[in-house]
Amino acid sequence: MDRRKFLKGSALFSGLFTLSPSDLWSSQRSTQPPHMGKAKNIIFMVSDGMSLGTLSMADLYSRNILGKGSHWMNLYHEKKVSRALMDTASASSIVTDSAAASSAFGGGIRVKNGVLNIGANGEKHLPIWQKFKKAGKKAGCVTTVTITHATPAGFCINSERRNAEPQIAEMYADLKLDVLMGGGDEFFNPENRKDKKDVYSVYRKKGYRIMKERADLKTAKNGEKTLGIFSTGALPYSIDRANLTDFKNTPTLSEMTQSAIDQMKNHPDGFVLQVEGGKVDWAAHANDIAALIHDQLAFDEAVKTAVDFAEKDGNTLVIITTDHGNANPGTIYGTDATQQFNSISEYKYANEYILNTIHKNYSVKQVKDWIYESNKLILNDDEARHLLSFYNGLEKEEGLYNYKKLPFKLYSDMQKSRNSVGWISMDHSGDYVEVAAYGPGSELLQPFIKNTDLHDVMLKAAQI
Amino acid sequence: MDRRKFLKGSALFSGLFTLSPSDLWSSQRSTQPPHMGKAKNIIFMVSDGMSLGTLSMADLYSRNILGKGSHWMNLYHEKKVSRALMDTASASSIVTDSAAASSAFGGGIRVKNGVLNIGANGEKHLPIWQKFKKAGKKAGCVTTVTITHATPAGFCINSERRNAEPQIAEMYADLKLDVLMGGGDEFFNPENRKDKKDVYSVYRKKGYRIMKERADLKTAKNGEKTLGIFSTGALPYSIDRANLTDFKNTPTLSEMTQSAIDQMKNHPDGFVLQVEGGKVDWAAHANDIAALIHDQLAFDEAVKTAVDFAEKDGNTLVIITTDHGNANPGTIYGTDATQQFNSISEYKYANEYILNTIHKNYSVKQVKDWIYESNKLILNDDEARHLLSFYNGLEKEEGLYNYKKLPFKLYSDMQKSRNSVGWISMDHSGDYVEVAAYGPGSELLQPFIKNTDLHDVMLKAAQI
Repeated sequence: MDRRKFLKGSALFSGLFTLSPSDLWSSQRSTQPPHMGKAKNIIFMVSDGMSLGTLSMADLYSRNILGKGSHWMNLYHEKKVSRALMDTASASSIVTDSAAASSAFGGGIRVKNGVLNIGANGEKHLPIWQKFKKAGKKAGCVTTVTITHATPAGFCINSERRNAEPQIAEMYADLKLDVLMGGGDEFFNPENRKDKKDVYSVYRKKGYRIMKERADLKTAKNGEKTLGIFSTGALPYSIDRANLTDFKNTPTLSEMTQSAIDQMKNHPDGFVLQVEGGKVDWAAHANDIAALIHDQLAFDEAVKTAVDFAEKDGNTLVIITTDHGNANPGTIYGTDATQQFNSISEYKYANEYILNTIHKNYSVKQVKDWIYESNKLILNDDEARHLLSFYNGLEKEEGLYNYKKLPFKLYSDMQKSRNSVGWISMDHSGDYVEVAAYGPGSELLQPFIKNTDLHDVMLKAAQI
Repeated sequence: MDRRKFLKGSALFSGLFTLSPSDLWSSQRSTQPPHMGKAKNIIFMVSDGMSLGTLSMADLYSRNILGKGSHWMNLYHEKKVSRALMDTASASSIVTDSAAASSAFGGGIRVKNGVLNIGANGEKHLPIWQKFKKAGKKAGCVTTVTITHATPAGFCINSERRNAEPQIAEMYADLKLDVLMGGGDEFFNPENRKDKKDVYSVYRKKGYRIMKERADLKTAKNGEKTLGIFSTGALPYSIDRANLTDFKNTPTLSEMTQSAIDQMKNHPDGFVLQVEGGKVDWAAHANDIAALIHDQLAFDEAVKTAVDFAEKDGNTLVIITTDHGNANPGTIYGTDATQQFNSISEYKYANEYILNTIHKNYSVKQVKDWIYESNKLILNDDEARHLLSFYNGLEKEEGLYNYKKLPFKLYSDMQKSRNSVGWISMDHSGDYVEVAAYGPGSELLQPFIKNTDLHDVMLKAAQI
């Protein structure tokens, strides 16, 4: 029977006696019961540069290799979230950069690529974490790249140049942000800054606890402001953190997320927290499938941390999304596609570490041995020689995060022939992207949105 | 206020007087009111090989060039559908072919690639259109490729080999299917069949009206069985149909869909119809962006035709999806990405027609002139010479639908440098894909599904 007609009909009264509230909700579309309360807290999670293929492959890898689905997809299985497709364009292009994308979320307007919350006529749009601070909430950001990078910066500050990271490190100090965790010692440490300013001391004077190592997370005190800077630049890829002892003192994204929540959760007026899996984007720029999947899974652990808290808390909106696609990776049809894809579980290091380890005086055999040790791939002599040609100045590659002009694309192509994963480019894409929302305010998410709409969802959910 | 608590609370009675039914539904997640009735009719729509990037770019092209969003995305804007992500794997691989994919929908089980509804031990699974025929409904298929191709065949017959198209043409005749429209004269016409059988005469004897041209659609009679075969092989790409006079007598997918609905809609026990945009997959295999977008938009017109009928009818479930991704196309970051993408609106023909027109005795200037006429692209002499090398036997490309070994990939790469669209390969991908459902039974769609789940959704929606 059509329940709508039923409710309109004369049987309204008697009928309702036979319906329990759970009947009413179970008759709805396959989604959780609506949360109509006010969101006291908001956790906004961005897997930076996550194409749908990245989300798909991380879930597939998790099922095939780890024997369980990803937490993100499990939220769908368990019907706990509302979902949307999102158009990620910027003011200047159908394909955004992370600065314009974060400004869309953070400033509520589309700006041109490269800019943080400054409009076409130079007007400054108040970033959303400043709005929430004014409303009395605590606010923080955690990321696996530099804390001054575009995605956290877009929620906090205005700048004509996303690359003004040394200045952004100082600007944050004026905002009284409550938790800042990620990489970027180079922008705080007087030894690494060009102007030799000790930015840490600025934060210390303002009462911040400074953290430098994973173990320091244990010293965090509920309510104390925290600046946790765990690396010179970006944090290591998760796959390297797992397999290289150098990085054992670096916290995971999930650990930083838990610590940030713990420090802010008792604030009577609530908190807002941005969580960025920033190296997902870098792995896509490098066409590095193992780094991509492991960082997406590290982000997925942070999703679990956030949703676990939100489930217990009951007053927390969690938004889970990306700022744009990147490289549209995907598994490619072929007789051995499954076996080849699963072979990625043999990979031990990120391609950046693999390629940085090779030196120009390596022999062909040394290259082949190193690749076998790193990825269990058997290169032929021509392939090893081709790689080596990049180390003796004969060839070079460009690329956003390819500072040493190493053969990322060439090596990824060699991997592709063995793991069946392809890429459309080494840069962002304009595909629509996935959004999921859990908790009070999630009912505000429409099925198809612009990136700027998430700004409004956050403000409306918190009734600010 | 939390409405759930409210309904549980003591204010149940008095509260309800203040709530209209529309209040109740508007408090739900952003989806249409639930359809809890039985689906008398089902229209199952497959844009074959549609990666999320294809859906995104067709919508973007429609907005940028045609000034309106796609019908598919408008269904989201208007909150008329429920949605899911779908895992498209087959029994043999994380990346399916269209035969195994259609068997998942049609037979309710995963089979190995290349096979139609036959399990690992040779067991035959009854195809879903046969189930519906047994239940008294009319059943039909329309497609832009051969009507005997994998996607329609997977809803109708069992075969160890998807390529057995001459046999499949005969098998259909035994099933009393009510509407069959698409291409494939080569499998019906005695002049083109190896065995010289006149398969048309078999259908004629069974009372079918045979159609060969677009104008014949007007002669279709409500309730009469129809075999409409409008091309030797697959139908032309939509972009060629629009710009080449040769193809004016070929119907569009939307026109075939409307005709199929009109022929079956008055049946007292209802009808089921599969609608396939089959050339979307072929365009992706060819890495041909203009053909891809125009065929996706032709599919989108058929979506409108189906949903318009379903809205008026009120008892029709429309499922809109794809069987798998293909080539993961997407727009790539760059200064001129928007302008470059929009330049696709200058393209007049499919790459297949462009490349088939070039002959080995073309001069470099003739190649350049022809490419300019076709795509408004200015090739340099080296590029024109490179293309020509494929016509004098110096080079060749392979590929599923590349019968003449033409330079599809090479030419697509030349286009890519001008239109900012990239591809991961020339074959299917394993990405999760988009599903939307409208009408009674759409509430059965869970947020994350396997392809086989759609088989069950159809049966449950129709209560069979």
